Amino acid sequence: MQAPAAPNAMAQTACAVLDRLRGQAPRVHCITNTVAQNFTANALLALGCVPSMTLSPEEIAGFVAGSDALLVNLGTFDAERRQATELAVQAARAAALPWVLDPVFVERSLPRAGFARALIQRGPRAVRLNRAEFVTLAGADPTPGELAAFARGGKTVVGLSGETDIVADGERLARIANGHPLMARVTAMGCAASAVTAACLAAERDAFMAAAAAMLIVGVAGEIAGEQARGPGSFATAMIDALYGLDGGALKHHARVTP
Amino acid sequence: MQAPAAPNAMAQTACAVLDRLRGQAPRVHCITNTVAQNFTANALLALGCVPSMTLSPEEIAGFVAGSDALLVNLGTFDAERRQATELAVQAARAAALPWVLDPVFVERSLPRAGFARALIQRGPRAVRLNRAEFVTLAGADPTPGELAAFARGGKTVVGLSGETDIVADGERLARIANGHPLMARVTAMGCAASAVTAACLAAERDAFMAAAAAMLIVGVAGEIAGEQARGPGSFATAMIDALYGLDGGALKHHARVTP
Amino acid sequence: MQAPAAPNAMAQTACAVLDRLRGQAPRVHCITNTVAQNFTANALLALGCVPSMTLSPEEIAGFVAGSDALLVNLGTFDAERRQATELAVQAARAAALPWVLDPVFVERSLPRAGFARALIQRGPRAVRLNRAEFVTLAGADPTPGELAAFARGGKTVVGLSGETDIVADGERLARIANGHPLMARVTAMGCAASAVTAACLAAERDAFMAAAAAMLIVGVAGEIAGEQARGPGSFATAMIDALYGLDGGALKHHARVTP
Repeated sequence: MQAPAAPNAMAQTACAVLDRLRGQAPRVHCITNTVAQNFTANALLALGCVPSMTLSPEEIAGFVAGSDALLVNLGTFDAERRQATELAVQAARAAALPWVLDPVFVERSLPRAGFARALIQRGPRAVRLNRAEFVTLAGADPTPGELAAFARGGKTVVGLSGETDIVADGERLARIANGHPLMARVTAMGCAASAVTAACLAAERDAFMAAAAAMLIVGVAGEIAGEQARGPGSFATAMIDALYGLDGGALKHHARVTP
Repeated sequence: MQAPAAPNAMAQTACAVLDRLRGQAPRVHCITNTVAQNFTANALLALGCVPSMTLSPEEIAGFVAGSDALLVNLGTFDAERRQATELAVQAARAAALPWVLDPVFVERSLPRAGFARALIQRGPRAVRLNRAEFVTLAGADPTPGELAAFARGGKTVVGLSGETDIVADGERLARIANGHPLMARVTAMGCAASAVTAACLAAERDAFMAAAAAMLIVGVAGEIAGEQARGPGSFATAMIDALYGLDGGALKHHARVTP
Repeated sequence: MQAPAAPNAMAQTACAVLDRLRGQAPRVHCITNTVAQNFTANALLALGCVPSMTLSPEEIAGFVAGSDALLVNLGTFDAERRQATELAVQAARAAALPWVLDPVFVERSLPRAGFARALIQRGPRAVRLNRAEFVTLAGADPTPGELAAFARGGKTVVGLSGETDIVADGERLARIANGHPLMARVTAMGCAASAVTAACLAAERDAFMAAAAAMLIVGVAGEIAGEQARGPGSFATAMIDALYGLDGGALKHHARVTP
């Protein structure tokens, strides 16, 4: 059984994390797919973070060592990115940096699922994924019990995106009912949420609260963007504007967190 | 001599194809250049399709086999993409999936033109290109007769983009006078049209009608976007919104198809 | 001591360069990072130029030889791009084409800084960078004297982006106080400025005036975009629209050039 997470405390923490992102401008190194790179960089910049995205084996360890968090997104699963991931995860572990795994599309590829499983053994501070990806990796539906078991098994926090997002760390569980249907119609939205999770881990030591803050920030920005959008094109643009303009008042006003 | 295509039948088919895209959410695997990936993915998502873009040799055959159509765009002509193309075309042929060739910039590169010619021998269901690319591959101007000959020679359908688009399969020919001048001022617009062609081939067995539906859908969305745009930046955004919001009424209202 | 540059002459030249870009549609080959490719291509297209971005060793020399200018951006510093850079710079030198170096993030990577230093010996017509990058390569703060020394040492023109941009060629120096704070919150803005510099070098033989024109065009477009933006998302869109819509009147009206 999961302990309830206090919704107000969560929105409060998300506000503090948002302030710290803007005050500290954490560096977030992203191994991510070429489809998502531009949107991901702009989402991080909108929140005040400094993204970098090199994959070059000569320099990636140095970039990671000079960063505050790392994102490993499997969306482009090529040899170059697998090698970069190995070097980057080593550097993150050596520097005790938080890192996030986003196992994009593992339900479509056995080699990718195998690679993701091996990475989970390396200690990501959080794993952000959707339902189909969770089912593939966990071999079970994302019930509260299975989410908690998955988090405990990987000694990680799981952030499940969906109509209602769920964050679980094995002890605590929170449901975040923010977001907008157009988020599913724009590429890189989940990838950007994972990058924001990495950024929040750089600004908040409690990984469960950091992951929940990230889901809340992205979900509320999505709602604000959805009010102005005429379709997924203007939604993507408005999403970046909303991340940039987001303040604590709007965050608390919109937050729909339940245990 | 080409048989005339019935304009009304064509707009009618495009409406049905549009409905099927949204109802069936076909998976379209895209080998495309890194410049065009984000816009292409968003165009497909806006129409209700599910894009994937991996190039990894370990998994691309599996992704293609699990897809409903394949796009091969030569815009980034590197060794990785050439290998991916070989594996993907094999998988598409084995599964009898439709695939589309977009021979980007063949007029600027002899090796690329050679690669494109070899690919046409492998049976793409459609080839979408512009005037300069056609002239390079066909060795002739894109007159109706040359378009028909090219289509017959490759046992394919040719979709020629231009001020007026032309679709030909060797027997039939249609001219589609939709579109907007700003389409030529935004990168990836042609690449996205090729991806939409692949999607339509997944939803319509008659390849000529599918290619014409794709040109019509993209052209009409371009016109709607052009009404709202202040330049190519807002045009690109409005184009995605227009693809998302397009309905049969607007499609029939705007369609300018002639035999 | 630097000779003062005449501000009016500079705005006048920028207007002429802008007209020539639209009239001549120069081809600009870009070796640039995957994060920046889409925005860079759209910025060039908005100004009437024709971008190409292939890295393939079989064809890059041919693409460069058929171009009017070359951009070498180090933002993705992988083996493929290093090889492409070698071939492209050889082809540019053989054809006496102007090329621009953008040494992105050299302050974060020793191998990248070494590669950039070696490239400067190969004769880029201009180097566009920011303060941290200049400090790394020059080993000194970007004072007017150091900028001039750097330009003389590399027999190049240096374009320094910042709150006020500075262009120096060792003899002349100009300060351009245009631009908008949101430019620092959108990825690829500097990369696009470097691509526009390459384009301007294709349209103007005086490299100092060409680089200054590029900084002025980008800075004024940024100001116009800033008036319409609600955040960095809409700013990026408005920036492309502003580059497309920019005319000589607006350029002269907004220009804030001082020696």
